[in-house]
Amino acid sequence: MHISLGAHTFVMPTPVFLVGVYDDEKRPNIMTAAWGGIIGSRPPCLGVSLRPATWTHRCLMTRAGFTVSIPSAAQAAQADYAGIVSGEKENKFETLRLTPIPGEHVDAPYVAECPLALELSLRQRVEAGSHTQFVGEIMDVKIRKDCLNPDGMPDMAKINALAYSPLTREYYAVGEFAARAFAVGKTIRSLD
Amino acid sequence: MHISLGAHTFVMPTPVFLVGVYDDEKRPNIMTAAWGGIIGSRPPCLGVSLRPATWTHRCLMTRAGFTVSIPSAAQAAQADYAGIVSGEKENKFETLRLTPIPGEHVDAPYVAECPLALELSLRQRVEAGSHTQFVGEIMDVKIRKDCLNPDGMPDMAKINALAYSPLTREYYAVGEFAARAFAVGKTIRSLD
Repeated sequence: MHISLGAHTFVMPTPVFLVGVYDDEKRPNIMTAAWGGIIGSRPPCLGVSLRPATWTHRCLMTRAGFTVSIPSAAQAAQADYAGIVSGEKENKFETLRLTPIPGEHVDAPYVAECPLALELSLRQRVEAGSHTQFVGEIMDVKIRKDCLNPDGMPDMAKINALAYSPLTREYYAVGEFAARAFAVGKTIRSLD
Repeated sequence: MHISLGAHTFVMPTPVFLVGVYDDEKRPNIMTAAWGGIIGSRPPCLGVSLRPATWTHRCLMTRAGFTVSIPSAAQAAQADYAGIVSGEKENKFETLRLTPIPGEHVDAPYVAECPLALELSLRQRVEAGSHTQFVGEIMDVKIRKDCLNPDGMPDMAKINALAYSPLTREYYAVGEFAARAFAVGKTIRSLD
């Protein structure tokens, strides 16, 4: 039995993206965004939605690239701060003692300290009411070396990414293994 | 120090959405999708991307509404199955012993057993290469009564939603509290 919560922007999980851009004077900035996700496989594309009032939105109206850095649960305070304070007023990399690394494929900075970072080439801006959805082609995914497992694959427990819960305004950690995909479903009935 | 993984559709977390539709003969169907997320606040909108080859994509070319049910970690096998088998060939609600509930606001079924369900009115189809992004306005969010905390708010530990890790093809649970949003960031420096 379900009850109604109303017409809210609530779903679980939503991601915690640190969107990295340079401004017109080439100052690096990050802003936190939870409205986004992958939207296509070929080409590999990710969308992230920002309000026009934000500094990052303004930068992305003239820039051709951006990054998305994924903070770990241990970086929750820094990620939260980057969603509260505008990059117009201060250099958040400096305040947060984070290191901007210039992208290899796009003219945008990512966060050296984050376990994951994506470089994105801007392909489309889609109007979405209060927000603009910026669609970027994923040019590269980068992972911090210490977040790889011995097989050279990402280790989710080490990445320990954050998820955001919009309605309750909380962060959750995504490091607890549940099941193998394209595998556990075959316990329902044999599909071979 | 980061190393490059290449241009993959990899980010953490991605959601595990069970997209619910009726087909032309009003048979209920669910399919699992991880490419999606919230894309705007006013109106509240969610996007989910599907490949044209899927049965749900075909249904959504003529339907005006869909649902997104959120499975809990305990439902990982059912969620995985719904992403492997096509609704053209079988009634997955029956195979998975799940109960389709007709939406209150849209003509689409949601999953009675899932902790969360969203009803969505289709507003836009955005071409995204290999996928079509279906943008729906969130008409209502429903929560299973036993997933509320004593304050009447969603209890994330009880919802215990799944996240999908694309590159490693694994599911993770999102039930471990990390920090309060719009709060923990203020430990960096006072913002009052």
